[in-house]
Amino acid sequence: MRRFAVVGHLAATSGTFSLNDLPGSGGRMDVLCRAVNSSFFLSHDLRRDVECYLVLLGEPGPEKTVLFRGAEVRHLSPDERSSGALIKKALSIPCGTEFRESTPGVYVRRGGLARLLTEIPFAVLDEAGEDVRTAPALPENYLLSDHHNFAPEEEALIAGSQRYSVGPRSLHGDHAITVLQNEIDRRES
Amino acid sequence: MRRFAVVGHLAATSGTFSLNDLPGSGGRMDVLCRAVNSSFFLSHDLRRDVECYLVLLGEPGPEKTVLFRGAEVRHLSPDERSSGALIKKALSIPCGTEFRESTPGVYVRRGGLARLLTEIPFAVLDEAGEDVRTAPALPENYLLSDHHNFAPEEEALIAGSQRYSVGPRSLHGDHAITVLQNEIDRRES
Repeated sequence: MRRFAVVGHLAATSGTFSLNDLPGSGGRMDVLCRAVNSSFFLSHDLRRDVECYLVLLGEPGPEKTVLFRGAEVRHLSPDERSSGALIKKALSIPCGTEFRESTPGVYVRRGGLARLLTEIPFAVLDEAGEDVRTAPALPENYLLSDHHNFAPEEEALIAGSQRYSVGPRSLHGDHAITVLQNEIDRRES
Repeated sequence: MRRFAVVGHLAATSGTFSLNDLPGSGGRMDVLCRAVNSSFFLSHDLRRDVECYLVLLGEPGPEKTVLFRGAEVRHLSPDERSSGALIKKALSIPCGTEFRESTPGVYVRRGGLARLLTEIPFAVLDEAGEDVRTAPALPENYLLSDHHNFAPEEEALIAGSQRYSVGPRSLHGDHAITVLQNEIDRRES
């Protein structure tokens, strides 16, 4: 299983945002939609062995986590609006502290990064980390930030985590996921 | 200079498509929008040394080519709707057989793949090609198809082209561009 978790520092936590304005009213929800795309899509196929966690920290709160499970997900197309619609639906249902399914393969709960890190050990994608291409072995689970750096309290949570870099340029999160998937694909092939 | 050209077999050739339905009314214009994103975006930066050609073959015709020049482009954000809006604007102005600027750094003309290939030599991204990671040298210019394979008449045009693969899995075009950019970034760093 490969797992990607992306922290959306401004990302909406209610389903009232507009699919016509994912960057604005969604709090850069477009960034998270592209991370979902990179996590799952192959040409004419879906990566069933992947989970993608979206940690949403924006308005109106409290923070929520949306989980896409590749093994179960349905109704997901590659365009941003498609994943955005599934996130909007997830954020529109009442949710408690345990994952509740909103549409097939999509789940939502209250809680953010601190709780997720107690459940799953994530390595961190970081430009200063070890090059994924030359690392002797690669972990299964990776945490990324959105267009903002991790906040100090988040850095404290991940202070002991392994860190990996995907190359010499600083990339968008979805591009980093794509490069990482390619590296793991090559190792597994 | 790096150049990417993507053939959109169903992609709209008039500006009447809806930004709210890039996959449907745009003729899978979302595929081309993501190719623009992968061609240009770095974290908090834009690749100025890239050009991206979108060869649009869909309704109502005739075929058109939209060119994004990284050195000049303005008003481009990473979300699909942003590049979609610039494409829609380009397709809304009268155009002839020479490139005409529709918004800063975005150009449009009539004509498709046959003409483009007489002007620029493109290698082809193809799962059966030479692995970009082990190729001794890499060319500057790459041609991709959208979610459809190249048509027989297109294959005839590119029959003599070099072919390169980005790895063991068959990827979406934008993901292939991202992996390729990473390989070239590594060679240039």
